[in-house]
Amino acid sequence: MVDERTRNLVKASSRLVLAEHVDPQDDMRAERARASFASENLAEYLNGGKAILERRSRLVAQLEKTTWGDKSQRYFLTREQEYVEGLKAAMGIWQLMQSGRLSVEDGLEMRNLLSFPGGLELHIGMFMPSIMSQGDEEQQAYWLPLAQTLKVIGTYAQTELGHGTFVRGLETTATYDAQSEQFVVHSPALSSTKWWPGGLGKTSTHIILMARLIIDAKDYGLHAFVMQIRDLRTHLPVQGVTVGDIGPKFGYNGVDNGFLIFDHAQIPRKAMLMRYAKVTSEGKYVPPPAANAKASYATMVYVRATIVEDAGWYLAKAATIAVRYNAIRRQTAAKVGEKELQVLDYQNTSATLLPLVAVAYALIFMGKSAMKMYKQFEKARNKGDFSLLPELHAVLSGMKAVSTWTAADGIEACRRGCGGHGFSALSGLPNMFASYVQNVTWEGDNNVLCLQTARHLLKSCEAAGSGKQVPGSAAYLTDAQQEITRKCSVGSHLDWRHSETLVTALRHRAARLAVEGHELLIHRGNGTLHFEGPAWNGSTVHLIHMARAHSQLVLHQTFTQAAQEAQVDQAAQSVLQRLVSLHGLTILIRELGDFLIDGYLTPAQAKMLQGQQNELLLELRPDAVALVDGFGFEDYQLNSCLGRSDGNVYHALLQAARSSPLNKTEEGPAWHGVLKNWLDPESRQQTHSRL
Amino acid sequence: MVDERTRNLVKASSRLVLAEHVDPQDDMRAERARASFASENLAEYLNGGKAILERRSRLVAQLEKTTWGDKSQRYFLTREQEYVEGLKAAMGIWQLMQSGRLSVEDGLEMRNLLSFPGGLELHIGMFMPSIMSQGDEEQQAYWLPLAQTLKVIGTYAQTELGHGTFVRGLETTATYDAQSEQFVVHSPALSSTKWWPGGLGKTSTHIILMARLIIDAKDYGLHAFVMQIRDLRTHLPVQGVTVGDIGPKFGYNGVDNGFLIFDHAQIPRKAMLMRYAKVTSEGKYVPPPAANAKASYATMVYVRATIVEDAGWYLAKAATIAVRYNAIRRQTAAKVGEKELQVLDYQNTSATLLPLVAVAYALIFMGKSAMKMYKQFEKARNKGDFSLLPELHAVLSGMKAVSTWTAADGIEACRRGCGGHGFSALSGLPNMFASYVQNVTWEGDNNVLCLQTARHLLKSCEAAGSGKQVPGSAAYLTDAQQEITRKCSVGSHLDWRHSETLVTALRHRAARLAVEGHELLIHRGNGTLHFEGPAWNGSTVHLIHMARAHSQLVLHQTFTQAAQEAQVDQAAQSVLQRLVSLHGLTILIRELGDFLIDGYLTPAQAKMLQGQQNELLLELRPDAVALVDGFGFEDYQLNSCLGRSDGNVYHALLQAARSSPLNKTEEGPAWHGVLKNWLDPESRQQTHSRL
Repeated sequence: MVDERTRNLVKASSRLVLAEHVDPQDDMRAERARASFASENLAEYLNGGKAILERRSRLVAQLEKTTWGDKSQRYFLTREQEYVEGLKAAMGIWQLMQSGRLSVEDGLEMRNLLSFPGGLELHIGMFMPSIMSQGDEEQQAYWLPLAQTLKVIGTYAQTELGHGTFVRGLETTATYDAQSEQFVVHSPALSSTKWWPGGLGKTSTHIILMARLIIDAKDYGLHAFVMQIRDLRTHLPVQGVTVGDIGPKFGYNGVDNGFLIFDHAQIPRKAMLMRYAKVTSEGKYVPPPAANAKASYATMVYVRATIVEDAGWYLAKAATIAVRYNAIRRQTAAKVGEKELQVLDYQNTSATLLPLVAVAYALIFMGKSAMKMYKQFEKARNKGDFSLLPELHAVLSGMKAVSTWTAADGIEACRRGCGGHGFSALSGLPNMFASYVQNVTWEGDNNVLCLQTARHLLKSCEAAGSGKQVPGSAAYLTDAQQEITRKCSVGSHLDWRHSETLVTALRHRAARLAVEGHELLIHRGNGTLHFEGPAWNGSTVHLIHMARAHSQLVLHQTFTQAAQEAQVDQAAQSVLQRLVSLHGLTILIRELGDFLIDGYLTPAQAKMLQGQQNELLLELRPDAVALVDGFGFEDYQLNSCLGRSDGNVYHALLQAARSSPLNKTEEGPAWHGVLKNWLDPESRQQTHSRL
Repeated sequence: MVDERTRNLVKASSRLVLAEHVDPQDDMRAERARASFASENLAEYLNGGKAILERRSRLVAQLEKTTWGDKSQRYFLTREQEYVEGLKAAMGIWQLMQSGRLSVEDGLEMRNLLSFPGGLELHIGMFMPSIMSQGDEEQQAYWLPLAQTLKVIGTYAQTELGHGTFVRGLETTATYDAQSEQFVVHSPALSSTKWWPGGLGKTSTHIILMARLIIDAKDYGLHAFVMQIRDLRTHLPVQGVTVGDIGPKFGYNGVDNGFLIFDHAQIPRKAMLMRYAKVTSEGKYVPPPAANAKASYATMVYVRATIVEDAGWYLAKAATIAVRYNAIRRQTAAKVGEKELQVLDYQNTSATLLPLVAVAYALIFMGKSAMKMYKQFEKARNKGDFSLLPELHAVLSGMKAVSTWTAADGIEACRRGCGGHGFSALSGLPNMFASYVQNVTWEGDNNVLCLQTARHLLKSCEAAGSGKQVPGSAAYLTDAQQEITRKCSVGSHLDWRHSETLVTALRHRAARLAVEGHELLIHRGNGTLHFEGPAWNGSTVHLIHMARAHSQLVLHQTFTQAAQEAQVDQAAQSVLQRLVSLHGLTILIRELGDFLIDGYLTPAQAKMLQGQQNELLLELRPDAVALVDGFGFEDYQLNSCLGRSDGNVYHALLQAARSSPLNKTEEGPAWHGVLKNWLDPESRQQTHSRL
């Protein structure tokens, strides 16, 4: 329809407009060519060896061949589809593992690559582990094979509408009835409705029930029971049970978090998990051995260690997407027609993204260290030695908080750093943030966990005050009084590069805040430390802040040491050192008031901080893409139009958008029934002709 | 089925467990009873009078009676449903207005109450206004009636895949063909695909096209055209046009943001909006009068004024939900069985939420002031006087950034402040955040806007340097050199309450940062100020920071003055004064480093800040619920199970959850087809009997 003359006319216009147009893929190639180190080597080290990365590629190829491993429609699913498809995918992996075609390790990695949470999360993460740790031998022998073959699917029902943090306040009761030798499980109030368990809504047939054990009108506190909630033939709720889905959430919508109400539901005596505490058929309560309280504690600590382990990788994903996109995104030329600038070359962009790359590395190393600490504890615990638990608990509580705050806020900063396209679901970032951010709340609300760490620090101050040597991560509190009189010794710009300088500054701050917290509590408690009550509740701002400061110190120390010990080539080592410096400087700049208020830093020293950060940003800029390549993600994992390794972003966006369900028909879902009634069919010719 | 004996057994357990249980509705009543002022009076003043509030109630009642005004299913909609239902609702209001049953004012308020963005947003917000401001008389007379009766639906197609911020870099061409007296509209590259316009995907039949006007291979830059893109009879794209939806986004999913590709699409010469620039039929370009460039600028400024106006109200909604919920949420007792503490009584909760209440008030007053400034400008502009534009632009750029950052981050802080239930869509907060947060990106990315304000501040420094009096909000830069030598005069705790103390501190900081920014740019530019190029791009961190500091000063000044002038009773006035102090103190505490680094504050003065904040938090605590009642929202507007005025939160959550689409059937959507294949029907009896 368009004639040659018109085409030529337009061709001339196009040439005029596209004079200095740059292909994003060329930008990406240029970025890689300018790196100072080989990102493959770093990726291998970080991920645990070349074999791991190769396995990952192999599993991705395998996943892409399955019906349930295709991610191309992931961002278009309705919640119901997300739930059903997520379950299908989980079942798909389960089947491969059960048939022996996939090792357990490969299966876990596949789950990780698929990143599609569904109804089985708590079956794997809580139901089976609870039976293993709290069931007696008979119970384990009975339930575990059923669970492993998915003949039953379970979840963990603890949280209630009215109780999350305050576990001891849960209201669901399991009253023992000696006459029938049963427990009667009941929800005594609306607020005792079980609420949140993943997989509870529509998937699980069984639960681990956390309920208050009542015998003869005496409350023995929380105990665990295994309980059937759905008929296995019809999947309908059993007698005395009302169960359902709690509706959509910010993210994580493949999981059917559920509610559950009990109306005098009866379960056999042996439903109680009896490895430790027991109830005899006559209704006699046999308390657990003393060490048991600590044992259930250990599961909680384990979950936190995994959260710390994951945080860095999540942030690394977001940083990979944002850095790559900002490397190919060009915006603004001094004059129209000139080559535009890569957005990563604006100082504020690199000052946002590169510190997030640094902290992602820091958190990944911290995660490895946390898991190592946990394994050491586990080893000792298996010999009955729980002595490592307090330190582990203190470190992991605060670190869970700091790592998830950092990762969640960092993911959102990466998303915003991608401008308009970061708002598109196709960037992968909205869903990542919305699903990840629950980590700041669950498994111990971050503020509450900081208070746990604060408690440990205050106890350490007490111990130090009575002349004791404080062990572990808070050892610096032993000489806290000396620590807080220290002044920063930085004399020149470059001094800020020394890792010891940064660690010393963070240690000084942590010590000062701990000592001040101790004084505050003693003062408000009229001479005594109280860990609850008005003095405590009225000081939580400072207490949380001091726990954060301690955790930032531990994080930076861990990163510093891990980077020094990293078995990588000299080029990668130099880059890691720069990241360590950038990480420390960024904390100091963000928390500058803390370092100035007691005169630790002079204004002159403080001013050098920003200058050093700028220099580091410029030095790291050529390595930006290589550094995110160094995390070693597959495109399949990122599932992001913006984060593609090849930089072909605009092509990917347009291609993906075409699959949007709204595009199923050309006229769209509102034409018939809504729009057609309004738009006047007669006016068409007019609009085209009259003006 | 349950016998009397069992019931009595369980009843005893329930009594034991629920001894100190508090009904949330009693908590809410108690909160209101303890307030020091009448929230109704404040709500009336803030909202513009009692009549406005009464109209609101009336319109809500009217909305609740319509089929499209029901919000009970809002959080359960698929994206397609959200789009179709959003459009139905918009059409519903349109019909009421067109039939004369609703005034335009009532219609706008209804839109606001409904809060359901759909395919008509840009028809109303950009298509019609563009024709009004840029169409000539003939064009207005032709198009506006069609648009007003929805015989055509339009949007505004400017942004492209590859260009958002850098408008001058847009690549779509409109080449004039004098022979056929038409423009040929073409997308010369993938990156020139139009991308983002709201309502473009499946709704709009027409667009305002922003394209580069090319005549005889000469580029005249961006011009606006009105162009048909869909057939009015079939709603299919017209010749030369490919159009579709760009897929789901973080939020705002009722809107069908779209993409658009032109392949030599031909439109008549008169499609160009010719109020200012013109193209004759022979292809002669008639440039616009000089003032026109400023005129198109004015629309942009107006949109930013509305964003500033809205920011406070959005944050106020989130704060209302969070404060009410945290007032009825009780968690943790020293001992099981004792009354638990209201979460709002933990210091960290009130230290999070009450400053957000304060800043919501600050932003609401700022919004009123911004709109007043705009109206003043508009009045002058209509007389051809554009002299108020530079100041308006400078204030609104930075303020759009600061207000949207504050509101977006504040909404998310409120969401997190609601713990687990804040993660549920039923809280209303996830959707609010996800839909609101685009405000930090669109209509001028916040960082880019801060650079606009920074530019104004630097020019003001230059002017002051050559002895000129700086007008407007940056007047303090006239004596900047004197301003920056000032020291804080606070001598006692209470001095921090004086509004002048806080304004002075913020002014000092803004002045210092501006002067330092000026020195930095002069230094990096070897003696000259450049507003682009390496010196500028390499200094954006400081430039953005100084624009933020300036805007925070303007915000706090405005709040201070507005609170003083507020026509409210003495009790409300006292509370407003506390909010002003809290607002200022919170900025100082958060940005403490800035005040310490140049010795403006002594450490002793800085330490008093936190103490004063704590005192204010305690003083304001009894008024917390009354203060959010003072925003004057209807439950219908909040549409939040957590934010209900009556505090009956748990009941609302359970009731709403029951409507979750996953609960349509008892067995759920994955039973047939997925779960049934795995769960062994034989094992049921065993699981119930054997153990």
